[in-house]
Amino acid sequence: MIHGGDIYSIGKKVIDFSSNINPLGSPANLKEHILNHFKEVEIYPDIKYRALKQKVASYLKVSENEVVVGNGAVEIINNAILMFPRIIIFIPCFIEYVLRSKLYNKKLLMFHLGSDFNVELKPLYEHIKKGDLVILGNPNNPTGKKIEEDKLLEIAKLTEKRESFLLLDETFHEFCDGYDSIELLRNFRNVIVLRAATKFFALPGIRLGYAYGKKEFAETYSKYELPWAVNTFAHLAANVIFDEEYINRSKEYIREQRNYMTKKLEEIKGIEPIKTDCNFMLIKLLKYDEAYIHDRLLERNILIRKCSTFPGLDNTYIRVAIKTREENDILLSALKDILEV
Amino acid sequence: MIHGGDIYSIGKKVIDFSSNINPLGSPANLKEHILNHFKEVEIYPDIKYRALKQKVASYLKVSENEVVVGNGAVEIINNAILMFPRIIIFIPCFIEYVLRSKLYNKKLLMFHLGSDFNVELKPLYEHIKKGDLVILGNPNNPTGKKIEEDKLLEIAKLTEKRESFLLLDETFHEFCDGYDSIELLRNFRNVIVLRAATKFFALPGIRLGYAYGKKEFAETYSKYELPWAVNTFAHLAANVIFDEEYINRSKEYIREQRNYMTKKLEEIKGIEPIKTDCNFMLIKLLKYDEAYIHDRLLERNILIRKCSTFPGLDNTYIRVAIKTREENDILLSALKDILEV
Repeated sequence: MIHGGDIYSIGKKVIDFSSNINPLGSPANLKEHILNHFKEVEIYPDIKYRALKQKVASYLKVSENEVVVGNGAVEIINNAILMFPRIIIFIPCFIEYVLRSKLYNKKLLMFHLGSDFNVELKPLYEHIKKGDLVILGNPNNPTGKKIEEDKLLEIAKLTEKRESFLLLDETFHEFCDGYDSIELLRNFRNVIVLRAATKFFALPGIRLGYAYGKKEFAETYSKYELPWAVNTFAHLAANVIFDEEYINRSKEYIREQRNYMTKKLEEIKGIEPIKTDCNFMLIKLLKYDEAYIHDRLLERNILIRKCSTFPGLDNTYIRVAIKTREENDILLSALKDILEV
Repeated sequence: MIHGGDIYSIGKKVIDFSSNINPLGSPANLKEHILNHFKEVEIYPDIKYRALKQKVASYLKVSENEVVVGNGAVEIINNAILMFPRIIIFIPCFIEYVLRSKLYNKKLLMFHLGSDFNVELKPLYEHIKKGDLVILGNPNNPTGKKIEEDKLLEIAKLTEKRESFLLLDETFHEFCDGYDSIELLRNFRNVIVLRAATKFFALPGIRLGYAYGKKEFAETYSKYELPWAVNTFAHLAANVIFDEEYINRSKEYIREQRNYMTKKLEEIKGIEPIKTDCNFMLIKLLKYDEAYIHDRLLERNILIRKCSTFPGLDNTYIRVAIKTREENDILLSALKDILEV
């Protein structure tokens, strides 16, 4: 398993802590909107994504010609990697940065995140050169850590100075507090900020990814884009999901549960939760390995993410989503049972 | 415009003869099925597509491990092109064979279709070598012609002997009568047959493409595949659309309308319809160019496909879909008006 959310291999009903989806579910009005416009599935989606880009642009507060869209964020990652000869990443990270780079025979520079899983500036200063693409998870998956504002500004300056590009994978953005990188980095020409409906809007099945980048980037990107990459239902979703009330309610809920989970996990012996900025937590196992904890939890119908498949992590880490209070309590109590016998 | 169906650039309501979709619309039970399973959009689709491949395999009468799926047929074409160093095609054809080959710097051999737009064997015998991918539309777009059974068998034998692959793009398959290439070519190791829900099942917006190929091909293909490329609604569609009654009724309707349109178009002066095997027709213009006919029809709220953007055709061709009897009559009468003044 190199990805979370694979409940299909389990063969029984589980509480899925392996995929990091908004526990409040998708925006309530989506189903009705899709129903009312169902007939549109019988015509080709706009190959230029005009209305879709308008909705996304308005949500991101950018221009329509600064938006690209894709069949989930992963397609935009894929196409961005195709566009550059050399890719620079820090591990652990989302494994597709590695897999897609290797598939296309790209040069790939991988550095380890520093102490506390923070991005290190030194290797960037030493290695970034013209034409590189630096990909940083912000917050990073599986660590949950958002890059500090000052450090991010410094990285953007460095990549611009070196005539390279910076792709911020922000598919978990809305779960976090603090700065908005699109606002923060508005004046840079070389920054791409990737987001998606998948996680925060709880729509992994609808496949809607979108990114902000300058017009020149968006134009080049369109050459790599497959026609009709975004399906009709994803188009329709963009009409209704960017709802302020839903967004604020979700952020508030996750903030509470993150604090609660952090506190409660810290109290459990034999594990060390890594401080997170978003809706999932990496946990260092001090007593057992990932397989033991995974299997014991699965006996209790709880699915978590083993982390040794992340480049840069070994089998002493697991990742868990932050879900509803009720579900979180089930996980906490199961972990206590397993670890504190 | 390099693709049909772009009604979004028109700015008014038109009868769209530029995209070739089943005029009977999508299978009736789809909407209810999606409604009943709407909640599934909140979980990741099966990254291994187990249930989906089962449904497709059963429809194609092949094994599950002989099926690949994609975000529309075009994604499978894209990934297949990525897998081979050299691509051989005949023009005119679907333009993405050319665009994707060029994007990935593949060697591309393009031959012209022969007289009556048929595939020529001579260039294949002369050029195919080990590792090539030959892509043939069957029926071809924009000519509507299905390859003769004997000729197809000969091509399959030749490509197998030369250790190359044959990709049959059969996205319009069900509209045609005659042999089924999957059945016909079952014993070849090197044949890929591509189909889709897009055209015959009238679901261009759902993005469901699928192909038959031997297990070894399917396994290699999976390395190129993006995770979760097929969305939840496309998964759901596969549960209900492969309905025999709907398929037979659609085939019968198209057969009737194809005969009707062929006869009626042949009676109109100044044009020469090219004999088609499926649900669209290429028309040679004898008096005017494509722009003139396109613009006169658009004044009457009818959108057709200009064909000079197809490699291998000039501006004296248009392509029209075969739609409902009522719509076909509107087109026929408009063409008469324009051409027989």
